[in-house]
Amino acid sequence: MTIGVIYGGSRENGNTEVLTEQIIHDIPVERIYLSEFEIKPIEDQRHVVGGFQNVNDDYNSIIDRIITHDILIFSTPIYWYSMSGTMKLFIDRWSQTLKDKRYANFKDVMSSKIAYVIAVGGDEPFLKGIPLIQQFQYIFEFIGITFGGYILGSGNKPNDVLRDEQALAIACQLRKTLKLLPTDNI
Amino acid sequence: MTIGVIYGGSRENGNTEVLTEQIIHDIPVERIYLSEFEIKPIEDQRHVVGGFQNVNDDYNSIIDRIITHDILIFSTPIYWYSMSGTMKLFIDRWSQTLKDKRYANFKDVMSSKIAYVIAVGGDEPFLKGIPLIQQFQYIFEFIGITFGGYILGSGNKPNDVLRDEQALAIACQLRKTLKLLPTDNI
Amino acid sequence: MTIGVIYGGSRENGNTEVLTEQIIHDIPVERIYLSEFEIKPIEDQRHVVGGFQNVNDDYNSIIDRIITHDILIFSTPIYWYSMSGTMKLFIDRWSQTLKDKRYANFKDVMSSKIAYVIAVGGDEPFLKGIPLIQQFQYIFEFIGITFGGYILGSGNKPNDVLRDEQALAIACQLRKTLKLLPTDNI
Amino acid sequence: MTIGVIYGGSRENGNTEVLTEQIIHDIPVERIYLSEFEIKPIEDQRHVVGGFQNVNDDYNSIIDRIITHDILIFSTPIYWYSMSGTMKLFIDRWSQTLKDKRYANFKDVMSSKIAYVIAVGGDEPFLKGIPLIQQFQYIFEFIGITFGGYILGSGNKPNDVLRDEQALAIACQLRKTLKLLPTDNI
Repeated sequence: MTIGVIYGGSRENGNTEVLTEQIIHDIPVERIYLSEFEIKPIEDQRHVVGGFQNVNDDYNSIIDRIITHDILIFSTPIYWYSMSGTMKLFIDRWSQTLKDKRYANFKDVMSSKIAYVIAVGGDEPFLKGIPLIQQFQYIFEFIGITFGGYILGSGNKPNDVLRDEQALAIACQLRKTLKLLPTDNI
Repeated sequence: MTIGVIYGGSRENGNTEVLTEQIIHDIPVERIYLSEFEIKPIEDQRHVVGGFQNVNDDYNSIIDRIITHDILIFSTPIYWYSMSGTMKLFIDRWSQTLKDKRYANFKDVMSSKIAYVIAVGGDEPFLKGIPLIQQFQYIFEFIGITFGGYILGSGNKPNDVLRDEQALAIACQLRKTLKLLPTDNI
Repeated sequence: MTIGVIYGGSRENGNTEVLTEQIIHDIPVERIYLSEFEIKPIEDQRHVVGGFQNVNDDYNSIIDRIITHDILIFSTPIYWYSMSGTMKLFIDRWSQTLKDKRYANFKDVMSSKIAYVIAVGGDEPFLKGIPLIQQFQYIFEFIGITFGGYILGSGNKPNDVLRDEQALAIACQLRKTLKLLPTDNI
Repeated sequence: MTIGVIYGGSRENGNTEVLTEQIIHDIPVERIYLSEFEIKPIEDQRHVVGGFQNVNDDYNSIIDRIITHDILIFSTPIYWYSMSGTMKLFIDRWSQTLKDKRYANFKDVMSSKIAYVIAVGGDEPFLKGIPLIQQFQYIFEFIGITFGGYILGSGNKPNDVLRDEQALAIACQLRKTLKLLPTDNI
């Protein structure tokens, strides 16, 4: 089994990345930093003759990478009580992939995956991050992904999250779970 | 009092716009279609020496327009159980404006406003649109905006929402409220 | 089709009842006032030898009445951001009925029903009543009931809710829906 | 500082109690088992001449005990996606205490407390227990209690929760927090 980590943040070594790396630093994973790619906003062409048009950006190359993994970790800072706009742009485009003949089995492939959400914010994330978790709950339910679990960490200034003992305890637990997997070399 | 409508959708005359226009079609408002503008993702530079750098895009010009209005209507299709990525990009950037000396009174100005959310989706929006409403609840609470109300409409194919009698009834009610306002010419 | 209204409030002519009666006052329904009955708290005996013991109270007589109806309206004041304790006692006991041989088809029977929730509270119910709606969402999902819709009304002092124009508009809409049903005499 | 544990379950040594005792088994606390007491449903007499009437049950004796503690742990099984009906009956009555001259400083006293919620359920509690947490969020906000944190554990059959490694990890963390407190003898 292989693991893909999808980073939605814009700051290098931000708290979300710091918390995520506590879990995966010595586990073989593929890290995908969405901010390094160009992802255009979806244009809703579901009801247009001809359907969705090809988009000239990096989106498909990211899809090509994540569909190969068995486990996905969505790791995003909590910006304004939800995932980063960059990660949202990425997920919005799934609507297009669902109609794309080149990815005819997209939903089936996604349905075999387990996903975790790691989100860190500065304003009472264990309460005010809840709508974000519910949003992922519906996203995963729709696409068929099994929701393995989540961590809502607290942090504002660099490395703050390392003082969130509860988040670290759950991270440690998730680390154990992932370490037990028969991970392939990647 | 004046009204600004912030459209987050990508489709012309989409259901969200159709529902919103039921309310405002003959009320003087300023319509802002976010998809017509370039809005770059925020780069979190809160903890960088020198702080946020100027960004060369259309974001500030939109802020300049919305801060003049007393009432804001956030009108977005529900994409993947939240606002569109485009609208999220826009709101994420508020973090930058909050630190921008040219908008030193941004929070104060926003605190005087009343906002409404109009969101239309295809998958049980009256239940699965709830996390989106809670996100806006926290967003408005943080920035100080009064949350005037919301409409969760149902629609998929073009004009579907015109058959959502409940959404139309609430829209009609909101229309009456807005019509009673001493609206300035704009 | 017949309609059963399950009232969870403790005050006669409270705002929740006033709003509900706007909808049903001249439609034939059966009104069940839970506060008039003795409903004991559930004792969790799922894992006890012999299972649940008979309880000497009015609970079963209420079940006997609601299972005959096609449409159920759960009408409760919002006490502390959820349904009244009395209504909660009633629903908690469903766990027992699910194991009761005399109601072997309880889940099947409930699965054929459509339910509406009408809830009135004094503290921003259109936002802070949301967790209550989500609880009902999961309750109905578990037992198989179709969630037809809900109204979150605002009111504190007697008859306050009659000034909540939005709640009244939705109520009016629900009234139209119910009036269209081929209602049996009851 | 002293700790009061308010148990809402009906089953001895149920999963909620098992998880809670992992935290407190050797910490001096006062345990209050709500199921051992008679708590009548609130009668909403806020708007009646004369106000709330005295109720002849055990409710006030429980209030007398909890107001003495600095930390409260609300420990309830998740019944139908919310707290037990018994615990709801108890909290509903706070509305009466808020108007009771004998408890004139009830809100002030409650405002000085920190509370934790421990809830165990059998149906995806880490997702479907979320509305319960939001309900407690609003309850504590209203009465002024600081929400210290929560644990959503998973369990159905007796002792199931002891296999929920994540819940145990958070419990262990909460245990450390409570152990650090300068606890008085009680």
